[in-house]
Amino acid sequence: MKKPHIVILGAGYGGMMTAAKLQKTLHPSEAVITLVNKNDYHYQTTWLHENAAGTLHHDRTKIKIKDVIDSNKVNVILDEVICVKPEEKMVKLSNDELKYDVLVIGLGFEAATFGIPGLNEHAFTIDNINSARVLREHLDYNFACYHHEMETNDARLNIVIGGGGFTGIEFAGELANRIPQLCEEYDIEKTQVRIIVVEGASTILPGFDERLVDYAMNSLESRGVEFINGAMLKECKNDSIVYEKDGKQIEIPTMTTIWAAGVRANSIVERSGFETNRGKVEVRGDMRTPDHDEVFVIGDCALIINEETGRPFPPTAQIAIQQAETVASNVKEKVRGGKLKSFVPHLQGTIASLGNDDGIAEVLGHQLFGWKAAVMKKVSDNRYLLKLGGIGLLMKKGKFNFFH
Amino acid sequence: MKKPHIVILGAGYGGMMTAAKLQKTLHPSEAVITLVNKNDYHYQTTWLHENAAGTLHHDRTKIKIKDVIDSNKVNVILDEVICVKPEEKMVKLSNDELKYDVLVIGLGFEAATFGIPGLNEHAFTIDNINSARVLREHLDYNFACYHHEMETNDARLNIVIGGGGFTGIEFAGELANRIPQLCEEYDIEKTQVRIIVVEGASTILPGFDERLVDYAMNSLESRGVEFINGAMLKECKNDSIVYEKDGKQIEIPTMTTIWAAGVRANSIVERSGFETNRGKVEVRGDMRTPDHDEVFVIGDCALIINEETGRPFPPTAQIAIQQAETVASNVKEKVRGGKLKSFVPHLQGTIASLGNDDGIAEVLGHQLFGWKAAVMKKVSDNRYLLKLGGIGLLMKKGKFNFFH
Repeated sequence: MKKPHIVILGAGYGGMMTAAKLQKTLHPSEAVITLVNKNDYHYQTTWLHENAAGTLHHDRTKIKIKDVIDSNKVNVILDEVICVKPEEKMVKLSNDELKYDVLVIGLGFEAATFGIPGLNEHAFTIDNINSARVLREHLDYNFACYHHEMETNDARLNIVIGGGGFTGIEFAGELANRIPQLCEEYDIEKTQVRIIVVEGASTILPGFDERLVDYAMNSLESRGVEFINGAMLKECKNDSIVYEKDGKQIEIPTMTTIWAAGVRANSIVERSGFETNRGKVEVRGDMRTPDHDEVFVIGDCALIINEETGRPFPPTAQIAIQQAETVASNVKEKVRGGKLKSFVPHLQGTIASLGNDDGIAEVLGHQLFGWKAAVMKKVSDNRYLLKLGGIGLLMKKGKFNFFH
Repeated sequence: MKKPHIVILGAGYGGMMTAAKLQKTLHPSEAVITLVNKNDYHYQTTWLHENAAGTLHHDRTKIKIKDVIDSNKVNVILDEVICVKPEEKMVKLSNDELKYDVLVIGLGFEAATFGIPGLNEHAFTIDNINSARVLREHLDYNFACYHHEMETNDARLNIVIGGGGFTGIEFAGELANRIPQLCEEYDIEKTQVRIIVVEGASTILPGFDERLVDYAMNSLESRGVEFINGAMLKECKNDSIVYEKDGKQIEIPTMTTIWAAGVRANSIVERSGFETNRGKVEVRGDMRTPDHDEVFVIGDCALIINEETGRPFPPTAQIAIQQAETVASNVKEKVRGGKLKSFVPHLQGTIASLGNDDGIAEVLGHQLFGWKAAVMKKVSDNRYLLKLGGIGLLMKKGKFNFFH
């Protein structure tokens, strides 16, 4: 009898953890496992804002797939997914086609710019290693150019962050810490640099408690960050950004707009003909698509409604990692003919970093501020590394700079 | 009686060394000394190619003026020189005017692009700290962009150096050492990167002995540098360069053209109405201008004909530093009413670096290759630091990495 072929698409939080668990629980005689990913590394999406600001090198954020995945147990194919053909149980890659018996889709998110003119062309995003290091180098380059031009150009030193949500605020926190170093490097006065967060809602970090939001704004403002709330981005040009507030349009000269106000599920999911809700697959309790008994969806591509609030759970690393336990277990049971179980999320809390030694957190009903939140975030990141790759990976990639 | 006012324009090799010597030999009761410079630092022009390639940080190349010049003895004015009005014995600065009794002009060189279309707009030069670090960041940025674009663009990884003279070759040597690091940083295959030197003459490093030229070409070719000799740059665009060879025009896609084939004296000299020859002042034996008894010219702005060859001495750091001894001594004698002496150059040799541990040299009739030449260059640089600022400056900025 032919062994079933399990194909996992994407080595993000969900796919990588699923593969890591399956290689432990399934014997090679039971199934063939294949992991498909564009790069030979997994990366911690929740650290990318640090890479983008230049406060953490991207090598720390990257985790080589071969450091976690045993190639004797899992085939790793480095290729790009073009689409899934669920009726044929087939995945089309750039250079190959794969037939599967069980499929796990963990293809993550992409930026959504909602048709705002110029954002696709001129704005930076923080969604993978490549885009994070382009942004880091773009910042350096603009600072380097400042004193090299005949006429000084403020657009080189104005940095606009579109979106005061999680990503925008975490990036602002890192950037505020990075600017003094950039100023030193390129002989620029700190007061010449502006970091401006433009947020559509009336407050940053919507969803967080007011006290935490106040703390975050104070911390960032004391480091020079400006906030423009209740304002919508209207157009992004290569040397300015236009926003509208109180019915008036205002233009800020800037060569660096970071778009951090919209993500959507990877469009491959929709393109492959799965039934979607806001671009995501509204999965069954056991994480399978409604129509295909052999297709699991995990992480940012999966939609699960929180029955308490009636709204979807947010697309976080925390949820994707938890889902991987359920998906790995259900894939194993599917191979063995056992009973699938339902995913039950355990929301442990939310932590936003505001730079290396500052942050805010709501954990099990408690609020944390400052270095305690920052330590908590590092502890949580370290737990993930331990879970994914054991003590070896933790020692290699963990964050141990708890105190300065 | 009013003390005479000595004004030194420019803190390059010539001006800085003149100021350093005068503060030792003239007593503050004898004269007022003022040094005018754009930046609060002096820099080693002969190290800029390392800063531009990213193999040496520019802080190593910069020397704070206050680390060498005693502000009790020399006034330092940070300002830009607009022009000299020799008839009025006055210097016009951006924000000030200075009357002088004795003037030393050491304003250095600037790039000359000979009207080749697009060079001013699109090519990089290596002529000061600002331009060197812009080039370094531009390289990083292009490598970072390579994997971030939908369609890969070879122009990002092709680097064209216009000019196989001293600067071009020294830069090529550093860059060849830097490329493997950039490739590692941005996940690029080394073989995808091209470094192309385009030289108008039939050989690189014209003036050097053939054996040394062969050695240099071999060393650089083994590290991936390509040479196109007997070719003239015709046009520089933002994403390509056009050269002509054997009557045919050829275009290379590149976003990085470095122009290293032409310098001229600072145009302020010509603009100020001094009599010039190829933009320089053909000075008297005592380094004064032909028409003005109180104006000395030093370094790249001064022209001295080598009577043995009938051609001008090349504009090197070595000559500028030697001239500073004569100029400082003559300025002192001018204040004291003594006799001025004539400048006699002592050509000690020429050393070209080909990267940190490689080089070629002709010293006192001997040829040196490889690490010996590289060590010789560092020893020579260290001697300059010792001469300029004593053992303290040598320890701070010297190069002691003689062996890997």
